[in-house]
Amino acid sequence: MKKYFAEFFGTFWLVFGGCGSAVFAAGIPEIGIGLLGVSLAFGLTVLTMAYAVGHISGGHFNPAVSFGLFAGGRFSAQELAPYIISQVLGATSSAFILYAILSGAGAFSAEGAGAFATNFYEMPGYGGRSYSMIAAFLTEFVLTAFFLIVILGATDKFANGQFAGIAIGLALTLIHLISIPITNTSVNPARSTSQAIFVGGEALKQLWLFWAAPIAGAIVGGLIYKFLLQKDSEQ
Amino acid sequence: MKKYFAEFFGTFWLVFGGCGSAVFAAGIPEIGIGLLGVSLAFGLTVLTMAYAVGHISGGHFNPAVSFGLFAGGRFSAQELAPYIISQVLGATSSAFILYAILSGAGAFSAEGAGAFATNFYEMPGYGGRSYSMIAAFLTEFVLTAFFLIVILGATDKFANGQFAGIAIGLALTLIHLISIPITNTSVNPARSTSQAIFVGGEALKQLWLFWAAPIAGAIVGGLIYKFLLQKDSEQ
Amino acid sequence: MKKYFAEFFGTFWLVFGGCGSAVFAAGIPEIGIGLLGVSLAFGLTVLTMAYAVGHISGGHFNPAVSFGLFAGGRFSAQELAPYIISQVLGATSSAFILYAILSGAGAFSAEGAGAFATNFYEMPGYGGRSYSMIAAFLTEFVLTAFFLIVILGATDKFANGQFAGIAIGLALTLIHLISIPITNTSVNPARSTSQAIFVGGEALKQLWLFWAAPIAGAIVGGLIYKFLLQKDSEQ
Amino acid sequence: MKKYFAEFFGTFWLVFGGCGSAVFAAGIPEIGIGLLGVSLAFGLTVLTMAYAVGHISGGHFNPAVSFGLFAGGRFSAQELAPYIISQVLGATSSAFILYAILSGAGAFSAEGAGAFATNFYEMPGYGGRSYSMIAAFLTEFVLTAFFLIVILGATDKFANGQFAGIAIGLALTLIHLISIPITNTSVNPARSTSQAIFVGGEALKQLWLFWAAPIAGAIVGGLIYKFLLQKDSEQ
Repeated sequence: MKKYFAEFFGTFWLVFGGCGSAVFAAGIPEIGIGLLGVSLAFGLTVLTMAYAVGHISGGHFNPAVSFGLFAGGRFSAQELAPYIISQVLGATSSAFILYAILSGAGAFSAEGAGAFATNFYEMPGYGGRSYSMIAAFLTEFVLTAFFLIVILGATDKFANGQFAGIAIGLALTLIHLISIPITNTSVNPARSTSQAIFVGGEALKQLWLFWAAPIAGAIVGGLIYKFLLQKDSEQ
Repeated sequence: MKKYFAEFFGTFWLVFGGCGSAVFAAGIPEIGIGLLGVSLAFGLTVLTMAYAVGHISGGHFNPAVSFGLFAGGRFSAQELAPYIISQVLGATSSAFILYAILSGAGAFSAEGAGAFATNFYEMPGYGGRSYSMIAAFLTEFVLTAFFLIVILGATDKFANGQFAGIAIGLALTLIHLISIPITNTSVNPARSTSQAIFVGGEALKQLWLFWAAPIAGAIVGGLIYKFLLQKDSEQ
Repeated sequence: MKKYFAEFFGTFWLVFGGCGSAVFAAGIPEIGIGLLGVSLAFGLTVLTMAYAVGHISGGHFNPAVSFGLFAGGRFSAQELAPYIISQVLGATSSAFILYAILSGAGAFSAEGAGAFATNFYEMPGYGGRSYSMIAAFLTEFVLTAFFLIVILGATDKFANGQFAGIAIGLALTLIHLISIPITNTSVNPARSTSQAIFVGGEALKQLWLFWAAPIAGAIVGGLIYKFLLQKDSEQ
Repeated sequence: MKKYFAEFFGTFWLVFGGCGSAVFAAGIPEIGIGLLGVSLAFGLTVLTMAYAVGHISGGHFNPAVSFGLFAGGRFSAQELAPYIISQVLGATSSAFILYAILSGAGAFSAEGAGAFATNFYEMPGYGGRSYSMIAAFLTEFVLTAFFLIVILGATDKFANGQFAGIAIGLALTLIHLISIPITNTSVNPARSTSQAIFVGGEALKQLWLFWAAPIAGAIVGGLIYKFLLQKDSEQ
C-alpha cells in the first residue's frame, strides 16, 4: 500500500504546486511569477518528491510516465492500474483543496482558455496565438517522448542515478518553459483530469487529447530508449 | 551549544535572505526580482545553510520543522525548547539588522498588508485578492504538512540523503511560489514572529495563525510520513 | 551507433528546448519567460541530457564542444565527423518540428533580427543595440573558450565528475544570460545552422561566424585547460 | 603556477558573467533578465568554476574569501598575496574585454550610479533609494560574514563536501538577490576594483568600502565558524 500512498501524495503535490502557483501567483501585475515561475514550480514538485518518496514508489506521479516505464521494460503491467488510480485520486484531491482556497477569496472562475490551469487547444492562450489540434498533439507527444528518454536514461544503471531526481524534475521545468503558451502544458493525464473536472465544459471535451498524446509519446519515448539508446549489455 | 548557534545563525540567514530580498529588491519597477526572486531567496537560505551547518544541528531553522521531526520520531522532546528559542532569537536579530539597513535609506514602513514582509490574512495582498482566515489556515497547514513529508522522506535512511539539502531548500522555494499572494507565506513561526515584532498592530494580532497552522500541519505531515509512507523495516 | 543516436536526440532536445522556449514563450507580454527563461531552458536541455545519455556518448550536443574536447586531448579525431553530422541532423530535425508547430498557429516568421531564434551580428537585437562583427566574434570566442574550460575541468579525473552535468548545463545558462542581447547566443554551430536553414537570407550569410568563432574559442579553451590548468600527474 | 591560473580564470569568469550579464542584459525592457538574472549569473560563475577548477586552487575567486579562509584556519598567510594578485588581474582583464564588447556597440557609459556594474553607496540605486554609508557597510559586512560561514561549513570535513560548489555558488546568488539595490553587491574586492578602474571618478573614491567591509566581514565570518560552529574534534 505504501507505494500507492506515495503516488497519491506525490501527484497531489505536483498539482498543488504546479497548478496552484499558476492560479495564485502567475498573473499578478509587475511582480507575479509568470510562466517562468510556474515552470519552476512544476519541476520542483517532481524534484522534491523524487527525493522524498522516490525510494518508496519510484516516483512516477503521472500515468504517462507509468506507461512509458512499462514500454521501456522497467515497470510491470499489473501495477499500471493501481498506480494510475492513485495518481488521479491524488491530483483530484489536490484540485479540490485549490478550489477551496481560491473560493476563500471569491476567485474561482471557469471562464476562458486555461481557467483553473486547465489544458486546451485551438483557443488563444497567453500569447494570443491559437495552436491547432495537430500542433497541440505534436507538442504533447514530442515533449512526453523526450521526458521518458530523460527518465529512462537518468535512471539507467550505467548513469549517475542519484542525480535522476534533479534531471527529471528540471526536465519538467524545461517542458513547461517551452509549451505553456501552446497547451498550458500537460504531459500528464492525471494533472489534466483534475483541473478539467472542476471546470467542465470545453475543458472536459478536450481532455481526451491530454490522455492520448502524452501516453502515446511516453510509449514511443520508452521504445526509443530501449531500442536505440540503451547499451547492449543491459538487455 | 554549537547546535544552538547553528540554529541561531541558520534562522538569521533565513530571515535575512528571504525577508531581506522581499523588502529590498522585490518591488523595484521593471527589473525587480518579484515574487519569483523572493521564493528563490527563501529556498536558497535553507539550501545553503543545510549544507553549511546541517551536520551540526540537523538544519531545522524553523519551530514547525522541529515539531514535525518530533512527530515523525526523528527529534527528541527535550530539545524542542532550546531549538525554538535559538530560532526565534536568530530570526529576531536578523529582523533588527534588516530594520537598521532599511532605516539607513529612510525606507522602513509598517503600513499596509505585508509591510516589512509580515504574514497576514483577510487583507488584500499583492494580487488584490483577500483570502479568508480559513483559506489562509488551510494553505499554511497543507504546505507545512508537505514540507515535512519532503524533509522526512529526503532524509530517510533509504533515500539519497546527500541531496536532502537541495530537495528541502527547493521545497521552500516551491512553497513560496504557491502562497506568497495568499499569506505572504510563513510555514515558519520564527520568521513570522521576527517581522511582526517590528511592525506591531495587526501583524501581531494575526501572529497566532502563523504559529498554529504551520505547527499543526507539520505534526500531521510528520505522522503521515511515519504511518503511511515510511517503510516497515525502519520501525 | 548508439552514441550517434544519443548525440542526435541530445542536440534535438537542445534546439527544441532552447530555441523552442524562445519562439513560443519568451516574448509574451507581462508573464512571458523572457531572456532569463530562455537562458534557463538552454542550460536545462544540456543538464537533463547529460544525465540521460552522457554515459552513452559523452554528451557533446555541439560541434564546438567536440572540437574543444579533441584539442584538450579527450576525444579522437576520427569521431569528429560522425558526431558533428549527428548533431547537425538532430538540430535540423528539431527545427523542422518547431517550424511545424509554429505554423500550426500561423506564427512562423523569417523577418527581423533573431527571427526563429537565429543568431546574428550588426543588427539591433532585443535591447536595440547593434554590436559590431568584431564584438560578436569576440563574445562567441570568449564564451565558448570558457565553456570548454568548465567542461574539461568538471570532467577532470581529479574533479567531482558526477556533478559535471549540473556545472556544464548551468554554464550554458550563464552564457545565455550574458550574451543573448549581443548575438542571440550561439556557442554551438549545430544550433545556429538549424535555425538559419529555415530563415535563410541574412541568417545564412552570417552563419560562418557561428561556426568559426565557437570552434576557434573551443580549441583555445581546450588548449588553455590542457597546458595551463590540468595537473601534471595527468599527462 | 596552475593554482594562480585557476584563480585568474575563475575571477575573470566571475566578472565576465556577473558584471557582463548586468551590462548587456539586465535592463532590456519587458524581456530583460533583471536583477534576478544578474543574481543567478553571479552565482553560476562560482558554481561552474568551483566544479571546474576548485580541485586546482580551492576556488576562491575573491580576496575576501581568501582572507576569511585564512581566518578560519584553512588557508596559509603566504598564499594570500599571490592569490589576491591573480584575482585582481583576472577581474581586470575581464572588465577590459567587457569594455571592448560594449564599445563595439557604442554603449559604454561611466555615468550614473552603478554604471558598468560598479558598486556604490549614498547614491540612488535601482529602486530610487539612497542607502547611507553605514547601511552599505553593514550590508556588505553581514553578507560576506555569512558567505564565509557557508563556505567553511560546506567544505567542513563533516559536511557533504561534494555539494559545496552548489551551496557556495547559490549563496552568492542569494547575496545578490538581497543587496543589488543597496550597493550593487560586492562582497568581492576584486570584482569592485575591476569595474571602478574603468569608470573612475566617484566609483574609485568609494572603492575603499568594498575592500574594507567584505574583508572585515569575511574575517569575522571565519572566526564565527571556527569558534562557535566547528565541531571540537576538528581542532
